[in-house]
Amino acid sequence: MAEHLEKPLTVADLGERGTLARILPLLPSASGMTVGPGDDSAVVGLHAPEVVTTCDMMVEGPDFRRDWSHPEDIGYKAMTSNLADISAMGARPLGVIIGLAAPPDSPVADLVGIARGVAKGLSDMAPEAGVLGGDLSTAPQLTLSVTVLGQLFGLHPVLRSGARPGDVVAVTGEPGVSERGFRILNEHTTQAGGVLDPSVLAELRSQPEVLHHLAPRIDLDHGPAAAAAHATAMMDVSDGLVLDATRLAEASDVAIDFDGDAVVDDAWLMGGEDHGLLATFPPEVTLPEGFHPVGVVRDFEPSADAVGTGEVSTGGVSIDGVATPRVTVSGVAPDIERGGWDPYRDSVNTRVSP
Amino acid sequence: MAEHLEKPLTVADLGERGTLARILPLLPSASGMTVGPGDDSAVVGLHAPEVVTTCDMMVEGPDFRRDWSHPEDIGYKAMTSNLADISAMGARPLGVIIGLAAPPDSPVADLVGIARGVAKGLSDMAPEAGVLGGDLSTAPQLTLSVTVLGQLFGLHPVLRSGARPGDVVAVTGEPGVSERGFRILNEHTTQAGGVLDPSVLAELRSQPEVLHHLAPRIDLDHGPAAAAAHATAMMDVSDGLVLDATRLAEASDVAIDFDGDAVVDDAWLMGGEDHGLLATFPPEVTLPEGFHPVGVVRDFEPSADAVGTGEVSTGGVSIDGVATPRVTVSGVAPDIERGGWDPYRDSVNTRVSP
Repeated sequence: MAEHLEKPLTVADLGERGTLARILPLLPSASGMTVGPGDDSAVVGLHAPEVVTTCDMMVEGPDFRRDWSHPEDIGYKAMTSNLADISAMGARPLGVIIGLAAPPDSPVADLVGIARGVAKGLSDMAPEAGVLGGDLSTAPQLTLSVTVLGQLFGLHPVLRSGARPGDVVAVTGEPGVSERGFRILNEHTTQAGGVLDPSVLAELRSQPEVLHHLAPRIDLDHGPAAAAAHATAMMDVSDGLVLDATRLAEASDVAIDFDGDAVVDDAWLMGGEDHGLLATFPPEVTLPEGFHPVGVVRDFEPSADAVGTGEVSTGGVSIDGVATPRVTVSGVAPDIERGGWDPYRDSVNTRVSP
Repeated sequence: MAEHLEKPLTVADLGERGTLARILPLLPSASGMTVGPGDDSAVVGLHAPEVVTTCDMMVEGPDFRRDWSHPEDIGYKAMTSNLADISAMGARPLGVIIGLAAPPDSPVADLVGIARGVAKGLSDMAPEAGVLGGDLSTAPQLTLSVTVLGQLFGLHPVLRSGARPGDVVAVTGEPGVSERGFRILNEHTTQAGGVLDPSVLAELRSQPEVLHHLAPRIDLDHGPAAAAAHATAMMDVSDGLVLDATRLAEASDVAIDFDGDAVVDDAWLMGGEDHGLLATFPPEVTLPEGFHPVGVVRDFEPSADAVGTGEVSTGGVSIDGVATPRVTVSGVAPDIERGGWDPYRDSVNTRVSP
């Protein structure tokens, strides 16, 4: 017990330089990197004069909670959510740039854990990619901001806007698994009065849904394979299938009808953070490995009632019977509570109650 | 007065999508961008198959305070600090990726102000660059994480590690101006009991040192000009000249001796956030426009006393007479209180006292 009472070594004890000295050796290099972390900027060689880039932040509280996520999970999931956005263009990741702000009293072991999660995520999902640089800063909440660079290797980027009526709608993985893991964690946390005990967490982690929620592993070959198979539109499912399909349908000015037989439950429709792909393919295409059909693209035909009556709701779902939904299930607007997650409206109160 | 009592429109009122709709139209596009913000990733064409990248975070509290900085200043300074790191390699900026986390009760006008500052910073300093993408998230403190991409246009990147004995040490701009602005703001804030009144701030902003601290404008041609003039080593001065020169001297395994006549005051030696350049040039080179000589590179010769006695202090300054300093002024270790700023050691307590 005595060693638990000892104060752990903090980032304030080691300072920026000392903390970096513990972290940098854990991080893999990118294969094309000619100047690495430690100078003002990194320099990376590319296959062609074109770069793909995306960014995603993760903040303690709205995006993760420490009684659920190990530091390794935080680093791993930060890789997944960002790498998925590169794959969703049909590109392959080249490297990541990581901004990390932590409270001065953070144990160095936590930052080392995050670095190990980053390294594991890259080695599992993008072994050719590495860490190109970053910034260590201080904030009252642990905050990660990850930018990924990728390259297309001669493929055309697959946008959200290319879906055409008649296209097949397909997804990778099983939508809703992360949401199911979230619900399991949430239920046990509520039962425990608001904070999950480490021993309960350890037990829950044996359930694949829980692990997928905390540290989802995805296959980054799917995006380039879809691009090579002439996918007409693609995105990763981060905010729930109905909300993300609505975004794709709006960008393409089409409607999407999911096959009722494909819909497993409401988690399938509205659960976010799976980071699988949603793509549309011309009907004559053989779907690439990993994709399975879940619906069709149709013409968008606003009903006479709906024309000019204003904005479609965030979820693209008809809440009040006025707007025409962009997304239906066997022709009918899905009956779900909400169409996805908005960081400003849903975060602290509905998503995470520490 | 009545309108001051009205609750301002918040990001929670508008949601992520509504907030983005106000911000995105304000942001300039990058010239090489083929896919812009709004898809999973952006796609950008380059001059050559090589990209330069760097990242810097700014967090309310340690990095800025709201009674000093207008939202426009925050956006502007986030550009300066990041663009400087691209210039310090000899590269030119191509575009920025911005992660922004704000409390849900933030006025939309604050985020619009930050976006205007970003746009102004790019238009003043890097008119060819634009915003490639980003992420809006939520956090208890306003947090920006900016990643910049740049390109070298055929020049070799100038690292920190190439300085050679005999080289001329030169800087751009006037080191210490930002620190002097900080001291003016700090003094008036202390006099006011801890929070600066907007009317006092408005008056102080007429002083160039104060404006330079809040929203520094730099000339991004200096870095590529130095690279073209065969600078042997270069970096931007973000944490104070003595600390940053120590880093350059360590990376190059040399010593740097500043000319005592060049040293203006202690702010010149230890003030950070000017984001001018520190570079070394072969003695026969005519310094490019904007650079002025401030010292010479010498061999690093640890004194007999110092060998094996342990680590040089963070500032590279001999505090206790044991270590040999990497940086001297006319041959003598500079007598300054501290050698720069460490986010974990110096932030909340010494730098900002809200």
